[in-house]
Amino acid sequence: MILVERELMRIISQCKEPLSTILKNMFTGGKRLRPKLVLLSGLCFSPVNLDMIYSAVATELIHTASLIHDDVIDESCFRRNQPTINYIHGNHIAVLAGDYAFAKAFEVLSVHNLHRCKDYFVAAIQEMCHGEVMQAVDNLSIDEKYYFKIIEKKTASLISACCKAGAVCGKASEKDVEKMGLYGLYLGCAFQIVDDLLDVIGDEVEVGKPVGHDLEEGKVSLPYIYFLRESPLGSKYHPFLNDRYRLLKVKSQLISDLKKSEAVNISYAKAEEFSKKARDILSELPESVYKKLLVELSFEVVKRKK
Amino acid sequence: MILVERELMRIISQCKEPLSTILKNMFTGGKRLRPKLVLLSGLCFSPVNLDMIYSAVATELIHTASLIHDDVIDESCFRRNQPTINYIHGNHIAVLAGDYAFAKAFEVLSVHNLHRCKDYFVAAIQEMCHGEVMQAVDNLSIDEKYYFKIIEKKTASLISACCKAGAVCGKASEKDVEKMGLYGLYLGCAFQIVDDLLDVIGDEVEVGKPVGHDLEEGKVSLPYIYFLRESPLGSKYHPFLNDRYRLLKVKSQLISDLKKSEAVNISYAKAEEFSKKARDILSELPESVYKKLLVELSFEVVKRKK
Repeated sequence: MILVERELMRIISQCKEPLSTILKNMFTGGKRLRPKLVLLSGLCFSPVNLDMIYSAVATELIHTASLIHDDVIDESCFRRNQPTINYIHGNHIAVLAGDYAFAKAFEVLSVHNLHRCKDYFVAAIQEMCHGEVMQAVDNLSIDEKYYFKIIEKKTASLISACCKAGAVCGKASEKDVEKMGLYGLYLGCAFQIVDDLLDVIGDEVEVGKPVGHDLEEGKVSLPYIYFLRESPLGSKYHPFLNDRYRLLKVKSQLISDLKKSEAVNISYAKAEEFSKKARDILSELPESVYKKLLVELSFEVVKRKK
Repeated sequence: MILVERELMRIISQCKEPLSTILKNMFTGGKRLRPKLVLLSGLCFSPVNLDMIYSAVATELIHTASLIHDDVIDESCFRRNQPTINYIHGNHIAVLAGDYAFAKAFEVLSVHNLHRCKDYFVAAIQEMCHGEVMQAVDNLSIDEKYYFKIIEKKTASLISACCKAGAVCGKASEKDVEKMGLYGLYLGCAFQIVDDLLDVIGDEVEVGKPVGHDLEEGKVSLPYIYFLRESPLGSKYHPFLNDRYRLLKVKSQLISDLKKSEAVNISYAKAEEFSKKARDILSELPESVYKKLLVELSFEVVKRKK
């Protein structure tokens, strides 16, 4: 990971100003989940090699580019405990900085001839866009099934691509590449459910962004779905569901009621279920210290507080 | 060009809804300058082949993606005589639709193993972002030299990449690829100067977007630079230059004064100069009907009314 970090910073500092400084700030303080997954997935099959490092770097560039654009889309002001690029520099610079980071990622993959990894990431970016669009359309009345479709596309697709890319760099067999992809898909779903939970019950400082933001954006995530559909406390909010403005006026009451309901536990159970599915896939792969770390990661993703 | 158009429409209709419909509208009515340049540059060196078609398709996807994001950045409401995606569907969908079109372009280039073309386009996208950022920073006091740097990056770099990509698909020698790149660079500069002129003196219906838009965005293009620096009529606007709000209040008067000044003719002369440089490069290449068309294009780019 030190090599990944060094290469990432080298690439960003090579960018022209003011993009270099803007991106440097944005890259400070992420969890680096995606590069970690590329490396661990690769190391399950072979000793470390440069392909893994470059793929890991590219995936963090792609992920950060998508975060920068997400912040434009959601008009977010805080991310990773810092003001967002759109907040400081405006949408203008933020859209461009995102495009630039995407292009840099593809440059890294091209220069190092990582064509298969690039194919996975290109497909994942399209899925991510499609998932975000699905979320934007008619989002106050979605059900559990539709929610899972959305998170698979908008989050799990890239995480799955990371694991496949790592495996390819580690020269895994086609079957094992597919297995790693499936591990990533389940892990990604668990990760996003917890992300959505933290948006409701998380600590603002630890999470690095305001709580209740999803609801403000009209995004009805899994805890809201369970709360509004199944909890007796939730039924009183049904008349508000067609009116986002009225819903926002009762936001703090709604979140406080949700925390008292079973919705949080049921959502966590669902995340555990995905996390368990991810581990089950790993059981089919040969034992190694890296596989153990991937197993650990599947627990951490659910337990995390930020 | 019919094959390019068919392939472009096939790719867009394969996209998932609602992105497919949104993109289809956006792709209606463009000039298709960039795909045309890919084809003509390739045909100068070999008969038509599929690589040229796919590169041409990718370049129109990249160009349109950048227009979609430009419209978000500039908060534009009209483009190609239609309301923009951000105007109809909001920034949300527009940012995503742009990202999606970028990803589609790279998918096309990857699937068909057009790695060199992809390298040119990746570098051009980075230049484009950097040019746009340069334009955003301190833009009311730029001079001619800085303006040429901006247009080289934000417009000419992609047009140059198109010509190089076409030449590579036509299996031109390295020297000829470089020459075609230089032709594209000069042509791109001429094109952008005229684009900026049309923003001042063009017909709104023909151009397909409102006139005077650049000034509203605080973009001081070449005719404004010549007018404000060299025309006696321009000097009266100097006190307004540090105050965009006051400048906008006198916008129609400023544009009317500019039209009476020599700034329009001097700008056109500069566009002619670039156009001539582009033709001079072509004179070093073997004669062909396609070269003649590229020569013609260098005239058209300056003469166009939209």
